[in-house]
Amino acid sequence: MWKVLDGIRVLDLSRVFAGPAATQILGDLGADVIKVEEPGRGDEARHFGITPATQGRHRDASPSFLALNRNKRSIAIDLSSNAGRRAVLRMAAGCDALIHNFRPGAMAKFGLSYDAVRAVRPDAIYCEFYSYGETGPLAHIGANDLALQAHSGMMSITGEADRPPVRCGTSVVDLHASLALVSAILAALFHRQRTGEGQRVETSLLRSSAHLMNYFYGEYWATGVVRGRMGTANHLSVPNQVFPAADGSVVIIAPSDVMWERMARALDPALDRPQWRTTVDRQRHRADVIEAISAVTRTMTCDALVERLGRERVNVAKVNDIGAAADDAQLAAIGGVIEMAAAGGRLKAVASPFALDGAPRAPDRPPPALAADQGPILADLGFSPAEIAALDAEGAFGSPPARAAD
Amino acid sequence: MWKVLDGIRVLDLSRVFAGPAATQILGDLGADVIKVEEPGRGDEARHFGITPATQGRHRDASPSFLALNRNKRSIAIDLSSNAGRRAVLRMAAGCDALIHNFRPGAMAKFGLSYDAVRAVRPDAIYCEFYSYGETGPLAHIGANDLALQAHSGMMSITGEADRPPVRCGTSVVDLHASLALVSAILAALFHRQRTGEGQRVETSLLRSSAHLMNYFYGEYWATGVVRGRMGTANHLSVPNQVFPAADGSVVIIAPSDVMWERMARALDPALDRPQWRTTVDRQRHRADVIEAISAVTRTMTCDALVERLGRERVNVAKVNDIGAAADDAQLAAIGGVIEMAAAGGRLKAVASPFALDGAPRAPDRPPPALAADQGPILADLGFSPAEIAALDAEGAFGSPPARAAD
Repeated sequence: MWKVLDGIRVLDLSRVFAGPAATQILGDLGADVIKVEEPGRGDEARHFGITPATQGRHRDASPSFLALNRNKRSIAIDLSSNAGRRAVLRMAAGCDALIHNFRPGAMAKFGLSYDAVRAVRPDAIYCEFYSYGETGPLAHIGANDLALQAHSGMMSITGEADRPPVRCGTSVVDLHASLALVSAILAALFHRQRTGEGQRVETSLLRSSAHLMNYFYGEYWATGVVRGRMGTANHLSVPNQVFPAADGSVVIIAPSDVMWERMARALDPALDRPQWRTTVDRQRHRADVIEAISAVTRTMTCDALVERLGRERVNVAKVNDIGAAADDAQLAAIGGVIEMAAAGGRLKAVASPFALDGAPRAPDRPPPALAADQGPILADLGFSPAEIAALDAEGAFGSPPARAAD
Repeated sequence: MWKVLDGIRVLDLSRVFAGPAATQILGDLGADVIKVEEPGRGDEARHFGITPATQGRHRDASPSFLALNRNKRSIAIDLSSNAGRRAVLRMAAGCDALIHNFRPGAMAKFGLSYDAVRAVRPDAIYCEFYSYGETGPLAHIGANDLALQAHSGMMSITGEADRPPVRCGTSVVDLHASLALVSAILAALFHRQRTGEGQRVETSLLRSSAHLMNYFYGEYWATGVVRGRMGTANHLSVPNQVFPAADGSVVIIAPSDVMWERMARALDPALDRPQWRTTVDRQRHRADVIEAISAVTRTMTCDALVERLGRERVNVAKVNDIGAAADDAQLAAIGGVIEMAAAGGRLKAVASPFALDGAPRAPDRPPPALAADQGPILADLGFSPAEIAALDAEGAFGSPPARAAD
């Protein structure tokens, strides 16, 4: 039985977050992912947020690098050298897909434009990831996850009504973009399998953020309504927010009248007052409804609330901190946690966000040390020892001629 | 030239959010998506958040329904009737992929398990979407986007440090899951194209949320560190948050020492003090650094800040509200906004979150009215007029025998 991407080779020039997160999923699916890194420093994400607590563990790699770079091989190539660029173009000829997140125009300057790659690999899938896209008034502006949380309006609807906006605590725009990249590459692979044709595919933090905000934009375009912040609550229904429990907090969401009735049955039948029975009624009496529910939930534990409301098919969950969430038994029970043997000890990580029955999983490879697979990668792509020596002498792998002559 | 999913037919039994968002992308790629809805009411998302301002527009459909249901055809089938279930199984035989988000066990009760579908369509791709997965201690608990924002710990890191958690204002877990579904289905289509084999694929709100939180879980598993809330700031670097401008606010992110130097050059060279030059220095003097930057940014407009910092390749963005974000020229410039002729007037929407060069886009079909395509769908799938009449008489399309006899 085949892994889904058996035999597919991906040349990954991307750095930091969305690109690496995408190629990790391709690696999980069985692709041979070749991570091209800057000699010496490597992907700068290796160094993000290294603390005294993490230093020395897992080859000094940061939590985000470790979370997003398994099932790849690493090679160091100096893209500032002509020889390095020549080496990458030659590597691209042996790869099914190439992915990069350089600024608009940079790949052309490197001699690695889509046309250049297509000349050596006619059916290449060439995948570009930008901040705001390749054209348009903001194309030249650099951006990252937080920048697009701000630009997209996501921040404007995140926070308390009478307080300033806050960020969503995790990198949602980057990680959402990673799945857009995976989708685009898989769509292009399917197309190539049917037609023999490669193509250029593209996404950006801007496209990712707009997709995350799509129904807010649509509502604004249709009606002019500009939504704001509501803490943990929501404009669509009541209750739909956090409530206090005896030992923590829970969210309770009962968007329909039927679910409200079931909620009352589970918590306290006295909540089912005639004047609160419709969605519109509960919106109108929002403060009273919230207070009445809180008076009941405050007397119960989180576990009891989840069990009682869950049994009545009312949406409910405990508000967990990171530790409780990571260690909750449910994630492990569905195969959502993987473990790898790594140089710094066993490494636990979150699995890819979907599971395929018909494709076996190979044992996972831990995130590579910088340039760990230099020789084997070049050999697999058909570079001869003489060629490798010549490229090396010209500084392709990070020993510029001047310094090599020292 | 082919659209990527030309000739691929998708039977969509999913409702509300993640499933419909996924199948819309498949429809954008050229698949024939058949949306199966409950007779009378339809997908309950049609009715979410209808306000006096939106009522009567676009067939009374909600903003989220309109945002997530273009490029589909609608048929109403009563799954509570035996005839309805038989009709769906017969339809599945003519479809490449089936997607549902019923609770664990429901599809088997309907006689629509993977085995049942495989019996009539051996190479079917059978896609399941759950809240917490099909097994495990929480499998029986209902959940939605907010529930998983709470359960996953996302909420615990979203908000101000000395205030309670808040939600991320948009449905990030649901929409992220939609791209996991698209990825899973495209991976399975590629596999089928190479091997002839269908398969069952699966994801859940839990898998989606864990992927969004992956580096926080990884850090916790490796070090025991449990991150908390920091408003708009971040534990990785300083500056990395919102700053005041003369006419609004911007985010400025300079995670490396090089970017800090460029930021100082762009804003005020006096910021480049010897005691603030390293990442660790700026973390140590966080409050002073933020105050000094704010004193400069307060005197400039958002546009000037974006232009000056952008030119120096420092990550920067304006904090937009929903209206400014939706109407910003950049999104339209990259083809991120589409318009459709719809019954209630022209309808604007956000495009799919990636673009393919090698595949043409057909004109988009607006979201369908409930059961708008009943006859043509059944005819396309080979139902004869006599069969349709018999199924109708048995209540398959929402006229149960008892009531039909009234």
